[in-house]
Amino acid sequence: MLNEFKNIIDPKKLPSRRKYLHYYIVGLIDCKGFFSVSIKKQNNAKFGWAIDPVFYVTQDKENRQILEILKAVFKCGRIIPKQGQEDSVLQYIVDARKNLAEKIVPFFKKHKPIIKWREFEAFAEIVEALEKGEHKNINGFKKLIAQAYKTFGEKKYQLNEVLSEIERRMGASETIRRAL
Amino acid sequence: MLNEFKNIIDPKKLPSRRKYLHYYIVGLIDCKGFFSVSIKKQNNAKFGWAIDPVFYVTQDKENRQILEILKAVFKCGRIIPKQGQEDSVLQYIVDARKNLAEKIVPFFKKHKPIIKWREFEAFAEIVEALEKGEHKNINGFKKLIAQAYKTFGEKKYQLNEVLSEIERRMGASETIRRAL
Repeated sequence: MLNEFKNIIDPKKLPSRRKYLHYYIVGLIDCKGFFSVSIKKQNNAKFGWAIDPVFYVTQDKENRQILEILKAVFKCGRIIPKQGQEDSVLQYIVDARKNLAEKIVPFFKKHKPIIKWREFEAFAEIVEALEKGEHKNINGFKKLIAQAYKTFGEKKYQLNEVLSEIERRMGASETIRRAL
Repeated sequence: MLNEFKNIIDPKKLPSRRKYLHYYIVGLIDCKGFFSVSIKKQNNAKFGWAIDPVFYVTQDKENRQILEILKAVFKCGRIIPKQGQEDSVLQYIVDARKNLAEKIVPFFKKHKPIIKWREFEAFAEIVEALEKGEHKNINGFKKLIAQAYKTFGEKKYQLNEVLSEIERRMGASETIRRAL
């Protein structure tokens, strides 16, 4: 029995082994989990935008235990009320890149989502590229932005708008550099 | 590798063992699966009502593979478009009582739902009581009806309405019997 979670839930309600619990989690996140990469305006960032990968799982408030189990298994993340549905819905969120790269991505590489495999593969590629610093040069950054748009379909900004703003910004800083 | 499902899905996308797939399924149904017991008017039934347990799982059309896997694992049931959302949503449905009693209930007794344990326990009790024929006498029938209302909250008819209709019907047949 998985006594390690006994402060969260009666161990009799859990699968008998850690390995089984891990596959239960894959089934759960295949429905209620999201691998998301969004693009955010960030004026103080080198290219004026940030690439923001987040893993989150949504549950009704009464199922908080499930999110607590996830938090205990992944040893990271936080549980917060869902924006706009604060009274009834909770989210387990992991957004620190180190945790995504060292905990979330390796877990789901080992226990692969079936429904969300495409989202997960793109998510893992982007997280790993960020870890390697591929976003630090303009071509790498633009490639990651395009990849995020392709899979995650950021809606707030158009891809062209983002790419041309990056060009404009870099062009302007190049002009200043030369003038100096 | 689980080659037995290779006609449905690339085995590389599945967990490596049958046992792991079973726990994946528990996670999945804990979100997208439903153990439901509804009460239906049925004039030709002994008490004028039928107790109708159904297990179903809902998925977007593009995830049909997942429902095909369930059908292959449980070796029963059917996949049909969801009423009202025929273009986009599918349902895997098991409603034959024999299949519920011999396949669905034993599977989830062995691999217990965590979120839906309450619904499942009530569902299993009702299915097993029906298998034992407990609904064939009026007290057993009324008990099962009340149990179904308690957990599944049938909305179409009020519990009192159903119980008093049963009484009325049985009273009438008793009157006829005596008159004869």
